[in-house]
Formats: sequence, structure tokens, C-alpha cells
Amino acid sequence: MTLTLYTAPTGNGFKPTILLNFLNIPFTLHLFPWPTPEIKQEWYLKINPNGRIPSIVDDGIRLNESNAILLYLADKYDKEGKVSYKVNDGDNYWKQIQWLFFQSTQFTNAFQQLFIYRTSNVTDEQVLGKAFANSDNVYSVLEGQLKKGKFIVGDKFTIVDISFVSVHYRMVKTLEGTIYEIKDFAEKYSRCQEWYCTCYSFKEVREAFEKVAN
Amino acid sequence: MTLTLYTAPTGNGFKPTILLNFLNIPFTLHLFPWPTPEIKQEWYLKINPNGRIPSIVDDGIRLNESNAILLYLADKYDKEGKVSYKVNDGDNYWKQIQWLFFQSTQFTNAFQQLFIYRTSNVTDEQVLGKAFANSDNVYSVLEGQLKKGKFIVGDKFTIVDISFVSVHYRMVKTLEGTIYEIKDFAEKYSRCQEWYCTCYSFKEVREAFEKVAN
Repeated sequence: MTLTLYTAPTGNGFKPTILLNFLNIPFTLHLFPWPTPEIKQEWYLKINPNGRIPSIVDDGIRLNESNAILLYLADKYDKEGKVSYKVNDGDNYWKQIQWLFFQSTQFTNAFQQLFIYRTSNVTDEQVLGKAFANSDNVYSVLEGQLKKGKFIVGDKFTIVDISFVSVHYRMVKTLEGTIYEIKDFAEKYSRCQEWYCTCYSFKEVREAFEKVAN
Repeated sequence: MTLTLYTAPTGNGFKPTILLNFLNIPFTLHLFPWPTPEIKQEWYLKINPNGRIPSIVDDGIRLNESNAILLYLADKYDKEGKVSYKVNDGDNYWKQIQWLFFQSTQFTNAFQQLFIYRTSNVTDEQVLGKAFANSDNVYSVLEGQLKKGKFIVGDKFTIVDISFVSVHYRMVKTLEGTIYEIKDFAEKYSRCQEWYCTCYSFKEVREAFEKVAN
């Protein structure tokens, strides 16, 4: 049975395609236009009762939540740990899990807030100031971590980097040139910027962004 | 070396204590008053650079993000799967991960929004309506899942239930009797209410709420 990925061009939606590119795993891509009411249709709610993307169906397993999907695919198709840590790696494995939770919560929330304000044209300086303080906080934490090494956990590019770069790319693309973009990003967060360039230099990353595009 | 838990009486803060109670694991409890500026002090930022709770230090491993801590403790101290699924359990293991991500993102966000509005005294009906629509969405998803069984994943009480009940309990305690509480909860979400009563009937759960209290 083939692995099927249901996704769309969003921060979370890019993640599984990047990983599958790195692992060279064949899959059927069901690409939704975005945004779309299709994800609330009955046939899709059977796959993902939460009506969100991405989801996968693989050998009878239906899974959603993008970072859960990364962990599942890495466990099944990356036995040698090319782009993931295994439970035997001890500390790095648990830091991998920890950073995936940080990504899905605080990191995504900081971006979401700016994105929502852009969508609803919020211009109140105090409100925007709070949102920028939030994004400042999460990028400072990431900057601190990237001072220890080139990648987020340990010494290799992993599903953690995949998880962050997908959302970061989406943020850059949707906010750049608007009043909602983080000013002087490359100067304030030079390690983050360097890390982003490194991640973007991988053709597996760029090709996934192109494949899962509007 | 002893396991040390740094925590406070919040939705995320209750989680590890409940699990440690079930597993009967001795630990040193560092209980912060709440809220507290202490979590931004240098000594604590060495344990958790993000300045949040909970965190654990165990055998040289420092870990934060409450659901990552649950997975770590379950892997290390619950080898027999008393309250957790193991990777050999297949689908249930991956659903466990999936629901932990759903809990930490959408479920927590829905509660946080109501909590923030309560704190800042927001009374605009349209704004509150959106927040209630969000909480309605996540509890509907949970209600749908609990129609399949007594607990959230599979047929036993697990770290997934621990994760949800901690935040749900915190929500009930902080919003009940205010205009921010979800009206007619027990009628609208009868399975969720039943599940909550079942979880609360475990003394390991109740004692954790009491131990980690303001």
C-alpha cells in the first residue's frame, strides 16, 4: 500500500514533504488548494476528524498533527538516523521531542499572531508591539540554541530543523515587505538567519516548497 | 541522583506530578509560587532557557515542555505500559503522540484565549463569541473521540488523559462562575464530562492537584 499525504501550502503543510524528500520515499500527494473548505468535508473528516492538514494514511495508520507525522515517518523510514535521532541517542532524542513541542506551540503561536493581524489589518501599535515582543522572545530562544551549533539539536540537520524551517519560510513569505514583518531580522538574529540559509541550501527543502505551492 | 521537578500550579504544571504519582517514583519537588518572576532568573534559565515551567533534571538530562516530559518519564519509568503506550503498540503509540500535540496546541490555545480575556476583562461579545467557537471546536473533537471509548486513546488511562485533564481542570477552576466559562458544558459535552469525572476519581490525579497548589 502506498503512503498518501494530504497537505497544503502552509507552515505545517510543508513539513512531511521535506522529510519524504530527504528519505527518498515514494508517496501519493493529495494537494489541497489553500485555503479551502474541502478539509471540512465528510470524506476528509474520516481521515482527520479535526479537519486540518497535514494528514497521512500509511499501511492502515491514519495520522495527523504535523510533528507527530514527522516522528512517525522518521521512526519507520529513517532507521539509520539520517535526519533524526533515535531513542538510543539519549539526550538528543529527548531534546528532539522537546523542540518539536516548542515549535508547535510558542514558535507557531508567535507567527500566527502576526499572520492574523495582517489578515485582519490590525494596526494598533500597542497590540502589534505585544506580538513583536512574543516573536522576539521565541527567536531569542532559538538564537541562543543556535549559538551552540549549526543545527537546532546536536550536530546534524534533523526533523527539528524541518519543523522550524517550514514555519519560518512561511512567515518570511507571508509577512515580508509588510508592517508585520520582524524588522532587522538578519542583524538581530544572525545565527537564525545563517541557519535559515543553510536549511534553504538543501535542494530537498527547496523542492518541497516548490512542490507544495499554491 | 534524584529526579527534580520544577513546577507551579498551572495546566502544564500539574502534568508530571500526576504521572509520577501513578508510577510511584520518588522526586524532589521545586514548587514555584504562581505567577512568579523567579522563572526568569539566571539559575533557572540554565535549566530552562525559555523561562517556563515545568522542567525536570534527571540523571544529567534537563528537559522542558510538559508533554515531552511525560513521554520521557513514561519511556524511562513505565516500561510495562501501566499508563502509556510503547512503540511496539503501533497505532496506539502514534495516536498517543498525535493527541499530545493536539493537546499542547489547539486545546491549550482555546483555553488560553478565554483565560487571557478573563485576565484583561474583555467583554466584547463578538470577540468572546470567537473564543467560545474555538473552545467549542476542540471540545467537539474530544467528544467525538470519547464516543469511541472511555479514555482518549485505546482502552486505558494514559499520559494523553493526564495531559488533557490537567489543562481541563485548570480551565474549570479559573473560569467557573465567570462569563468566560463554557455554558452547559456537561450537557453539550456529556462524554467529556464523564471522562473528567473518571479521571478525577483517581486519587493519583486529585493528590497531584493538591500537592501542586497555590
